[in-house]
Amino acid sequence: MKKILLDPYFRTLHTIFYSEDLERLKSTAEIIWGKDKKMPKKEWKEAKKEASIIITGFWRYGSVDKESAPNLEAIIEVGGQHPSPKVLDYDICFERNIRVLSCAPAFAPMVAEMGLGLAISAARDIVESDRALRSGTEKWQNMNVSTLYDQVVGIIGYGNLARAFKPLLEPFRCKIQAYDPWLPSSYLKKQGVSSVTLETLLETSKFIFVLAIPSAENKALLSREKLQKIQSDSILILLSRAHLIDFDALIELTNDNRFKAAVDVFPVEPLPKDHPVRKAKNIIFTPHMAGSALQARRNIGRMVTDDVEALLKGLPPMNLQVARQELVNRFD
Amino acid sequence: MKKILLDPYFRTLHTIFYSEDLERLKSTAEIIWGKDKKMPKKEWKEAKKEASIIITGFWRYGSVDKESAPNLEAIIEVGGQHPSPKVLDYDICFERNIRVLSCAPAFAPMVAEMGLGLAISAARDIVESDRALRSGTEKWQNMNVSTLYDQVVGIIGYGNLARAFKPLLEPFRCKIQAYDPWLPSSYLKKQGVSSVTLETLLETSKFIFVLAIPSAENKALLSREKLQKIQSDSILILLSRAHLIDFDALIELTNDNRFKAAVDVFPVEPLPKDHPVRKAKNIIFTPHMAGSALQARRNIGRMVTDDVEALLKGLPPMNLQVARQELVNRFD
Amino acid sequence: MKKILLDPYFRTLHTIFYSEDLERLKSTAEIIWGKDKKMPKKEWKEAKKEASIIITGFWRYGSVDKESAPNLEAIIEVGGQHPSPKVLDYDICFERNIRVLSCAPAFAPMVAEMGLGLAISAARDIVESDRALRSGTEKWQNMNVSTLYDQVVGIIGYGNLARAFKPLLEPFRCKIQAYDPWLPSSYLKKQGVSSVTLETLLETSKFIFVLAIPSAENKALLSREKLQKIQSDSILILLSRAHLIDFDALIELTNDNRFKAAVDVFPVEPLPKDHPVRKAKNIIFTPHMAGSALQARRNIGRMVTDDVEALLKGLPPMNLQVARQELVNRFD
Amino acid sequence: MKKILLDPYFRTLHTIFYSEDLERLKSTAEIIWGKDKKMPKKEWKEAKKEASIIITGFWRYGSVDKESAPNLEAIIEVGGQHPSPKVLDYDICFERNIRVLSCAPAFAPMVAEMGLGLAISAARDIVESDRALRSGTEKWQNMNVSTLYDQVVGIIGYGNLARAFKPLLEPFRCKIQAYDPWLPSSYLKKQGVSSVTLETLLETSKFIFVLAIPSAENKALLSREKLQKIQSDSILILLSRAHLIDFDALIELTNDNRFKAAVDVFPVEPLPKDHPVRKAKNIIFTPHMAGSALQARRNIGRMVTDDVEALLKGLPPMNLQVARQELVNRFD
Repeated sequence: MKKILLDPYFRTLHTIFYSEDLERLKSTAEIIWGKDKKMPKKEWKEAKKEASIIITGFWRYGSVDKESAPNLEAIIEVGGQHPSPKVLDYDICFERNIRVLSCAPAFAPMVAEMGLGLAISAARDIVESDRALRSGTEKWQNMNVSTLYDQVVGIIGYGNLARAFKPLLEPFRCKIQAYDPWLPSSYLKKQGVSSVTLETLLETSKFIFVLAIPSAENKALLSREKLQKIQSDSILILLSRAHLIDFDALIELTNDNRFKAAVDVFPVEPLPKDHPVRKAKNIIFTPHMAGSALQARRNIGRMVTDDVEALLKGLPPMNLQVARQELVNRFD
Repeated sequence: MKKILLDPYFRTLHTIFYSEDLERLKSTAEIIWGKDKKMPKKEWKEAKKEASIIITGFWRYGSVDKESAPNLEAIIEVGGQHPSPKVLDYDICFERNIRVLSCAPAFAPMVAEMGLGLAISAARDIVESDRALRSGTEKWQNMNVSTLYDQVVGIIGYGNLARAFKPLLEPFRCKIQAYDPWLPSSYLKKQGVSSVTLETLLETSKFIFVLAIPSAENKALLSREKLQKIQSDSILILLSRAHLIDFDALIELTNDNRFKAAVDVFPVEPLPKDHPVRKAKNIIFTPHMAGSALQARRNIGRMVTDDVEALLKGLPPMNLQVARQELVNRFD
Repeated sequence: MKKILLDPYFRTLHTIFYSEDLERLKSTAEIIWGKDKKMPKKEWKEAKKEASIIITGFWRYGSVDKESAPNLEAIIEVGGQHPSPKVLDYDICFERNIRVLSCAPAFAPMVAEMGLGLAISAARDIVESDRALRSGTEKWQNMNVSTLYDQVVGIIGYGNLARAFKPLLEPFRCKIQAYDPWLPSSYLKKQGVSSVTLETLLETSKFIFVLAIPSAENKALLSREKLQKIQSDSILILLSRAHLIDFDALIELTNDNRFKAAVDVFPVEPLPKDHPVRKAKNIIFTPHMAGSALQARRNIGRMVTDDVEALLKGLPPMNLQVARQELVNRFD
Repeated sequence: MKKILLDPYFRTLHTIFYSEDLERLKSTAEIIWGKDKKMPKKEWKEAKKEASIIITGFWRYGSVDKESAPNLEAIIEVGGQHPSPKVLDYDICFERNIRVLSCAPAFAPMVAEMGLGLAISAARDIVESDRALRSGTEKWQNMNVSTLYDQVVGIIGYGNLARAFKPLLEPFRCKIQAYDPWLPSSYLKKQGVSSVTLETLLETSKFIFVLAIPSAENKALLSREKLQKIQSDSILILLSRAHLIDFDALIELTNDNRFKAAVDVFPVEPLPKDHPVRKAKNIIFTPHMAGSALQARRNIGRMVTDDVEALLKGLPPMNLQVARQELVNRFD
């Protein structure tokens, strides 16, 4: 029976597995560790030698060469994104055909739902109106709001998140355009999305969704100068990472009523209690919740267990995201 | 050239017509009045004799018999719902084949969008989280939220609003059930919706949308006793009218953490400044905004003008809602 | 208990009713006649006096005035289209608020499916290829075929049939345009269809579906001159009625390889055994089968029974098509 | 500038490339050969040493080791399926990170459309009715046909073809079940498909689509014994390969009126002129045309060019299908 090193820390077993899935996983292979607390180094050094699969919250186990991990066939991360190339040597992984799998797809539907909720909340003034009504300053039957119906929507980064988000937009009959330098326009066209430059996207979209995975290439992609191209009645929804945006510029521009925004991610998390951002106008804030629903977390266990079963049968994993050699070295 | 009495008060022309539509309307018939302010009685008494069509914000013109309105072929209301049978004699309308048309369908998409926005805001804790983050009490990556995906959704009243709302739910793979005593289950089945009793709907739905048009039959339909059947982790979204619910019971139950809610309509509007409801917990409040977007308002003019053109050509109106003899006397 | 005159001839009870629906109908009202064979005149003359609802295969019962049908509230036809104004006095019906209901919607999905099947069969050469393979003249891996994907589709007449057909086209990403002089472009736009002139439709559509209900206005609408506008690689699918087309011109043009066609309806049915049309080229023929599936027939009974239940409760019929005063006098 | 060996034989350049795509390909790299006729061995032996990418109709170039193909980064096949492991050493490919890409996805939509067309033609009796009408033996308004609406549909093999086919079925409200031993049920569930055993699928499906890629494991999967489980009023549509079925048993069973079928693929192609199959009853035959439309062929060139551009930029190919180490050795 093959061996699986199960070390989900910083996650805990019960937040990522339904019990029946954990049982199923235990019946497919011999589990090493399998505890919530962080596995100590001297133990994982030994375990790495025996394990065919390592399931981990984040990669911290050093080399994956033949000597230190002779039986390793797959690395499954349950944190939310592929290990950085700074901590994992992907070249060895590809050479040895060690699959590196990420649970990122488990979060996509939750992020998509949050993105839609934030967009409608900002467009229809839900957060502001509730606040006003509680303080007695509400406007009744205020018509001065916008809507998603028939609008031009721009998506920055058309990966997992965008693919989960697009179906939610469809009933609103939006014209969807995307900027993604990693994708050919023919691929986007097949998705029913038009491929545009970042400038065009910012200048012509009423709703702008930032869904790109952080990479060396897109650090502060949305610079102050770029953000100034956004139309005054547009709404920017920041979901993937603050990494992509000049955050100070964003706050200044929304405070100046240049456009509206909804923000789920911050340059520093948790945000310092006294951070001025907390007073920003024309923005909806949520504390990094887009991917966080217990239901989504538990999908991780279901996906992991099914893909482990597939791998042990010599079949391809269908749920988790396989690291592709062309992309991993671009991840931040 | 036929004559149209155009008296949109309490609406104003520019909030319901794009200028090109107003021009088009003027070119199809001779317009009488056509001003924003309320038409005086002595003027409409005369105009009623000549008009083939009366377009009005609310019906207040008395009898529609042969004598007082000999040429009348259609009544078009632009307020938002069919005139009450208390003010308009529908029997004479049907006998004389005077069509009574409502612009209600123009609001349906806006209400549907708001319904979805409120549901996601409540499920994903958007309003609460923004408030918390501004006061420094936010929880980071809080997983204790719910989601629309794969949930059981109950819809009370499956008319205009529900038909506009259903497509927005589809990508979330919800099981949709409806309670509507006016509709055969075969009709609902064709819409992909299962027909259930009110009890079953309240006991089994995670999201409950109140979309029924107010009628003599559904006054306080959602009594305290009925509301107590709702599951503790469910969310009730009240959109059509406060008429349908025991509002005090709703507030007490949500304050007792029995379930969550989002409310756009109130027993008294505007709500008194010092009304205790303003402090209610576990509820999102919006001040009767669900149907209110300028874009939607202007759809009214487009729909009215197209249907007037059709009527004058002897064709059926396709946009506005035709009063049906079986229902009008049930409207409140 | 109210009385229903049930005289389905030329249909038979078991081809339009599932037995449980017939039982349900009998439990809602007292049934008069209720046999497959044609009701004799002297019997229906009496029955007309008592009946609140008449369910009939085709209307042949003369006047519906107060004297001869004092209790009549609704006429339900189960043949497939509203009675011609030549045989039924609609003015009296509207004056007396007698609803005239047609089962036409029951056939729409079947016709839509057939339309799609014929279009693909013609585009992908299915009928021709099967014939060729059986006679040993087939071409292997013949690429010289067309496809529905991403094509411009024209629909003539956007009623029941078109509304049932459109969803079947959606996954093929077609650009859909329609010609329907009875409908405002705003209505079509809401359906996701662009409104065009007949000329534009014929000149620019790769697939042309004739779905209009026959009327005095559209007799031979598709004249020889109009048909000549069709592009050489286009396909015309004739489904609603031969009434709309110059049939001889159609056959000549397809025989001359001007375009391809699929035809389900004929000027004379049954077609004479020796009719030259039977030898026509570039056409797929089916003998008036588009609406004919036992499953569809039995939907009639379900729709009728549900709507009778609604009517007897004073609720609006939701399944059957209500005759509209603006249209009935246009029907052929 | 990198070098591409372009040897599309048995295809021809103009049947797989739009001229603008071929121009674009030539501008991204130096093209070797680039002719329709088969490249002679002595030439490709040299070219293999220089080429970074080989584009070929079928793989016949022997070893891909460091010595004989030192610069090789990708193999792109334009025939329609991944090279058999009998002719290509995939282990070396994976070790050297040489991507092996197939144009199979270009055919999927065409096969899906054909599958739907064959299913409706068989259900609604289109081919048979046209034949009958031409011979004067047609039945008018024959109701004895079946329909796709609301039926149970079984899909054998849920890969490329099935994923392209599923959206076409959706408007018919079918219950879709699939048998695919390579896929976890959680993956199928996410697609809205239930996972069943082959027996259950055959016993309960009214329409059975054979879409599995031929593999060592599924040779004659549909044995006589299995085929006998199919219900008498069901329809089997054979699209992927005759490899999967006991073809003689299929013909005997349909000749015995056990069920109906539509068949696009044959054990021997072309089929001998005098083959008895040509006389088979209750079957629609097409001569291996499901993937064959010029439009589809030309999609190959678009996909290839876009993916070559991506590869040369160090980006992942998004259009073509990447060979996965778990599956290639299973292909036939």
